[in-house]
Amino acid sequence: MTLGDLVIDVIKKLGVGDIFGVPGDYNLRFLDYIVGDDKLKWVGNCNELNASYAADGYARERGIGVLVTTLGVGELSAANGIAGSFAHNIPILHIVGYPNSKVIEYDIPVHHTLANFKKNSFLESFTPISGATTILTATNYIEEIQRVVSNMLISKKPSYLGIPADLVDLDISETIEDIYFYYKSNDTHKVKEIGDIIIKRYLEAKKPIFFLGINIARFGWREIMTKILQKNQAKFATTLMGKSIINETSIAEPNFLGLYAGDYSTEGMIKVMQDADCIISIGTVETDINCGGFTEDGIDFDHVITIRPNSVKIGKKLYSGINIDMLLEYLLENISPNKNAKIDFKAKETEVCTEDFIDDENILNHKNFWPLVAKEIVKEGDIVVAEAGTALFGLVGQNLPPRIDFVSQLLWASIGYTLPSAIGSAIASPNRRVLLFIGDGSFQLTAQELSLISRYKLNVTVFLINNNGYTIERAIHGAKQSYNNISVWNYLDFAKSLGVDKTIKVKNFKDFMNHTQEINKNGPKMVELFFDKLDYPPLLKQISDKLEEANRQ
Amino acid sequence: MTLGDLVIDVIKKLGVGDIFGVPGDYNLRFLDYIVGDDKLKWVGNCNELNASYAADGYARERGIGVLVTTLGVGELSAANGIAGSFAHNIPILHIVGYPNSKVIEYDIPVHHTLANFKKNSFLESFTPISGATTILTATNYIEEIQRVVSNMLISKKPSYLGIPADLVDLDISETIEDIYFYYKSNDTHKVKEIGDIIIKRYLEAKKPIFFLGINIARFGWREIMTKILQKNQAKFATTLMGKSIINETSIAEPNFLGLYAGDYSTEGMIKVMQDADCIISIGTVETDINCGGFTEDGIDFDHVITIRPNSVKIGKKLYSGINIDMLLEYLLENISPNKNAKIDFKAKETEVCTEDFIDDENILNHKNFWPLVAKEIVKEGDIVVAEAGTALFGLVGQNLPPRIDFVSQLLWASIGYTLPSAIGSAIASPNRRVLLFIGDGSFQLTAQELSLISRYKLNVTVFLINNNGYTIERAIHGAKQSYNNISVWNYLDFAKSLGVDKTIKVKNFKDFMNHTQEINKNGPKMVELFFDKLDYPPLLKQISDKLEEANRQ
Repeated sequence: MTLGDLVIDVIKKLGVGDIFGVPGDYNLRFLDYIVGDDKLKWVGNCNELNASYAADGYARERGIGVLVTTLGVGELSAANGIAGSFAHNIPILHIVGYPNSKVIEYDIPVHHTLANFKKNSFLESFTPISGATTILTATNYIEEIQRVVSNMLISKKPSYLGIPADLVDLDISETIEDIYFYYKSNDTHKVKEIGDIIIKRYLEAKKPIFFLGINIARFGWREIMTKILQKNQAKFATTLMGKSIINETSIAEPNFLGLYAGDYSTEGMIKVMQDADCIISIGTVETDINCGGFTEDGIDFDHVITIRPNSVKIGKKLYSGINIDMLLEYLLENISPNKNAKIDFKAKETEVCTEDFIDDENILNHKNFWPLVAKEIVKEGDIVVAEAGTALFGLVGQNLPPRIDFVSQLLWASIGYTLPSAIGSAIASPNRRVLLFIGDGSFQLTAQELSLISRYKLNVTVFLINNNGYTIERAIHGAKQSYNNISVWNYLDFAKSLGVDKTIKVKNFKDFMNHTQEINKNGPKMVELFFDKLDYPPLLKQISDKLEEANRQ
Repeated sequence: MTLGDLVIDVIKKLGVGDIFGVPGDYNLRFLDYIVGDDKLKWVGNCNELNASYAADGYARERGIGVLVTTLGVGELSAANGIAGSFAHNIPILHIVGYPNSKVIEYDIPVHHTLANFKKNSFLESFTPISGATTILTATNYIEEIQRVVSNMLISKKPSYLGIPADLVDLDISETIEDIYFYYKSNDTHKVKEIGDIIIKRYLEAKKPIFFLGINIARFGWREIMTKILQKNQAKFATTLMGKSIINETSIAEPNFLGLYAGDYSTEGMIKVMQDADCIISIGTVETDINCGGFTEDGIDFDHVITIRPNSVKIGKKLYSGINIDMLLEYLLENISPNKNAKIDFKAKETEVCTEDFIDDENILNHKNFWPLVAKEIVKEGDIVVAEAGTALFGLVGQNLPPRIDFVSQLLWASIGYTLPSAIGSAIASPNRRVLLFIGDGSFQLTAQELSLISRYKLNVTVFLINNNGYTIERAIHGAKQSYNNISVWNYLDFAKSLGVDKTIKVKNFKDFMNHTQEINKNGPKMVELFFDKLDYPPLLKQISDKLEEANRQ
């Protein structure tokens, strides 16, 4: 047994089967262990940023992602991706190949260092954007592996694990059985105390609403949450980030009220939330866009119960150290339908496309395009990946079929994230179809990763929104400024040069309708869609005006 | 006058005409100032890593580079590039667009943050990899601009300047005339004291050698150094990183001894350095590869005088706070030829290609290819950009024509660096031809940036070494391991899809010779060159064996 074997066993115990990254001379010996293991697959990304995004997409499907980079040049390229995973509670085990232990101990100015004789510069860069960080030594490895992996499992934040090249083959006596990773409070008294308060408040209310956020997915509560809602026929709304975490149609539909994000919501939805006398907020995240620019006016916060990953807030009172897994189990068992509850409101139906614009031979437009996508393209069980641009703000308002995983970055909002992330999703869930919607400006940041779709034969359909530039920036500021322009590419030829042979060009709605069958087939492909550069989904325009105002104040 | 105007004036005073970066909503209002200024040009890169590399390439030509990114998602993507600029002493003014001041002050969880209510996470990530860092406020801006810009000018390290969106339009009363940036010691006594010791040691020596490194270029001493060598007809050697900083042919040639890098050098060169009784080392950098794996055995360090950017070491004695600009002026004025010096050694001539392999219809090979490039392709005044792979180790041993700028990253060695860097060089020096030599594995990391060559009509010829993967990693470890494979691309079609219409495919030496005229023409183009994946330049194999050993120890 070597240290390399132990780390491989840890990865497998975490349920990970595919590892993302880029080789570099300080990690090559660890990569030997990966490619030497039957149960693990090495995915070679084009660069480390893309690899970190892919690991993030993988983790959203499988719970954990593993990324391997090399000292300095490799790891730092992944910093943006790691920070995005931190912001969105995506646990990534980031393994960094270090030079041999003596080089580290004596700060020897080897390649891939700053040659400035200061220890651990790169670990320091990752400290503010990681949950826990460490560099293994021949004496600390058991304690440190336990610490950084446990931190990752509890906090859902990325962990940083530096492994010196000479230690990979170190003979050790411990095995995976000697590490106990996970710790959560088992205080059943606290759970009962708080659970009973919540149930009482819920049953006494006349207009109780469950308000659900993305951490329900991040912390593994989708299934139990669905059961709680079904058992009680409880009304619920979701945040923008919580899009599709609970089925919006079929079983749950009658009780789905819609999306709520302060001023960005419909008038009806705002009123429903203001009228509510008990809001049980679970796994929601407070950010500018997710909260409608912090405009949740008129809500009485004494009526709000907020269940966060490790705490519960009831009115102004904050209870910490609560095991939320146990609390949700307790609620499921002990809650009963509130027979007095009465909320006369239903989610807006997705507008159905009318014939007149389908015959239109003009260029596509966002207003009509996204309802059409919801109706004609997205199917039950798909993974829908929406870039934080026109795609996200076009799709988030559409009611989507059941069992959709909706992947986006509303908070971190790093353009270019979704292409590698979609690849990670496709590798994680090979039996599901991945639909990626991405604008041309965003696409150019990480475009080379498209080649993995053909290399690994992934079931990804890329919808490339060609609107000549950074349209989300145009919506916010400088609509006609040259800095929002990008280089002109031939995207379909580009795709072909990387081995994606199946390409479809869509100029207008007629084209689109003619090709829906072909588009809906499985297999790697790119669909290019043409929009005007100043055309925005209505929600985007509303949000971007707020953002511009917030920057200016 | 606004704060935005002031920052623009600072940029222009630094001699910068082109600014690299990617728009993001927190920097858009500052970009308005850039595109609104007649003397400045905004270069929109495909992503921030590429932008940071381009700014680095620009700074190597023009002294300073300016990079503009946006909070979190933008800046962190540039971290690898900034750290590389730090390692190589490339001054980059990294301007980061921040949200408005209140958001920063109260840690409001807006988009592009970690939403964890901790101040300055990203500034902290940049602290270990920057010279100086700051975020401007309405009260600190004059002092802080002076501090971070001065630090950059003196240390040649990147500086980090965060500008909140609301402060860009802040009315201020100060102008650029109110800032005095640069401070260096003017202690002429110290300069004379040390200059006289150096001159005495030089004139008393029988075998004196100037040993020259890359910081001669970084700190602006190429011209004065050439004059010192010429005036004294002094013998000199260079480090690997110091490649081509002093003309290796024409005027200086008879006195050029060759490259010295410990064990990686020729036997003759090793002996010459060991025999030297006075080595005046100027601007050299100590790193593993640059120093032959730290194998400078047999050199008597009591004979070595080391002139570093801000200090001089004579034997064991270290003098700090010396103004090296003044010291070199003093040496030029006061040194006289050492008439007793006698070193019977000359640099190895570049091997001239013989007819037999030129007729060869077999695949290209590194042994013969690089001398042919030196002879047929590289011309006086070219900028030669060599990726830290087969290209660097193939080219570094060839004697190149005068007035070459040789751009590479021997220390930081971030693969993918050279394509954006070459673009930065071409923008900085539009009248020079840029020749980029890059392997396919490296190319894939930053490939999208190729589109800027056509977008901005840059005089860059890309020599794409197609050898199916990471050959430099193969040379070090895992020659036949699958992790050193990459996706298969059609590189010439790829180039065309990004607007680079001129492409040339070279299968063998005959092809190559048939196309030299076409290759040597000005204008954007890509030349694809086919090599075996296990063929390495001889120097690379020698170095990579050492690196593998160093990792294993």
